[in-house]
Amino acid sequence: MKIIRYKKNEEIKHGILKGNDIFSIKGDIFKDFEIGEKIAKLSEVELKAPIEPPNIIAIGLNYRKHAEESGLRIPDKPIIFIKATNSLTGPDSEIILPKLAPDEVDYEAELAVIIAKEAKNVEAVSSQDYILGYSCANDVSARDCQIRKDKQWARAKSFDTFCPLGPVIETELEADNCKISSILNGEVMQQSNTSYMIFSIDWLISYLSHNMTLKPGTVILTGTPEGVGFAREEAVFLREGDEIEIQIEGIGSLKNKVVKEK
Amino acid sequence: MKIIRYKKNEEIKHGILKGNDIFSIKGDIFKDFEIGEKIAKLSEVELKAPIEPPNIIAIGLNYRKHAEESGLRIPDKPIIFIKATNSLTGPDSEIILPKLAPDEVDYEAELAVIIAKEAKNVEAVSSQDYILGYSCANDVSARDCQIRKDKQWARAKSFDTFCPLGPVIETELEADNCKISSILNGEVMQQSNTSYMIFSIDWLISYLSHNMTLKPGTVILTGTPEGVGFAREEAVFLREGDEIEIQIEGIGSLKNKVVKEK
Repeated sequence: MKIIRYKKNEEIKHGILKGNDIFSIKGDIFKDFEIGEKIAKLSEVELKAPIEPPNIIAIGLNYRKHAEESGLRIPDKPIIFIKATNSLTGPDSEIILPKLAPDEVDYEAELAVIIAKEAKNVEAVSSQDYILGYSCANDVSARDCQIRKDKQWARAKSFDTFCPLGPVIETELEADNCKISSILNGEVMQQSNTSYMIFSIDWLISYLSHNMTLKPGTVILTGTPEGVGFAREEAVFLREGDEIEIQIEGIGSLKNKVVKEK
Repeated sequence: MKIIRYKKNEEIKHGILKGNDIFSIKGDIFKDFEIGEKIAKLSEVELKAPIEPPNIIAIGLNYRKHAEESGLRIPDKPIIFIKATNSLTGPDSEIILPKLAPDEVDYEAELAVIIAKEAKNVEAVSSQDYILGYSCANDVSARDCQIRKDKQWARAKSFDTFCPLGPVIETELEADNCKISSILNGEVMQQSNTSYMIFSIDWLISYLSHNMTLKPGTVILTGTPEGVGFAREEAVFLREGDEIEIQIEGIGSLKNKVVKEK
């Protein structure tokens, strides 16, 4: 099932996407709900990020080859960082190159896990019970801030629009064996599979839930594979007019245009 | 005016505190509201953190002597980090020493700024227009995670209950010249004045708003003065049964007992 969040007639609501048709939801997406009547066609609405999270928790270096290309040691525990929630944006919105750091803005294709119910001290074997579904995310990062200017990653990862999410939350996915890629202006930049994660999704949910209570709607970004812009032989960064696309098998495609902050 | 958030008869609401009496609020604390009838005495309710923030943004090393005691260079730009919102807790709650990191949990007295309306690219001279008021915060930190185990501070600062906030939001405060202290089991550990901040509150709001949109309710922790536990000649960490109190002149006192995670 594909859960979306859409704007129509100035109202923002959750719905279910079947083909190109949107159906209403009666009830609470975190609890029990029924699928109602057909509301609109996909082309008639603006898609928003499919969830408004209380926290966006991210994992650094969860693919071996990305750790290697970044010149960093493969961690024996996941690196946890946080993106401020103002970074969230949707599939029909633009990534804005911020005036304070416009020059080294990079893409990172990531599988996003969306939490369904409060998770605290959960065992890995039960993690699936706490997952609502999966989405595509782009962990956009200002590398000048992340690598040279700041020691903490928070600012580099939290500029407005630096967390595109969508287009849907897919609730029925075998998420540990999906192709994942990023495509910049039609050219494949990252191409991997979620099976190459160092820490599995089930293990990550368990580990995070031992560190903090994961509230319903929490978005967990599970790390990016090799091929990001700053680590390429000739560095590539996002420029005004670019289109960056994140594709994950079984979920769909998250495309965002790039503009400069005015 | 002192804004509180309290629980009575299983309902959580905002109210206004006058002396020991709580009055109702009619309207929206971020917009226009009127003070209504007397609801209860302070002793009859449970005080909660006075706001539920969309983000908790924190500033590292904003007092010169704390940077020195930590052996860190005085920064020429503020260090920004983020505490996950699950860390929030109130004045009538306990700080929990987490099982994963119970041994080096430290206190940090901080002045918290609460944002009233959306702030983006605000000039320092206008910052005051975007501030709802001020509160006491304790930026509780697991030093083993922060200093030795992790490079990023996010996890060390985001365990559940690691952000006590309260007891009130004081809306009428000259916040740049207030005594600030922390008191552990009756003994003064930190004693300073907000006038010693390296980056002023107005400047910080402006700087942060150039990096990210500050939404209404955002909590900004403005850094801690010298005297934290890990940097003392003989290190002091929080232990079960302790009481840690943050006092800020003109706001009040935020006291929390310390317990172990069960």
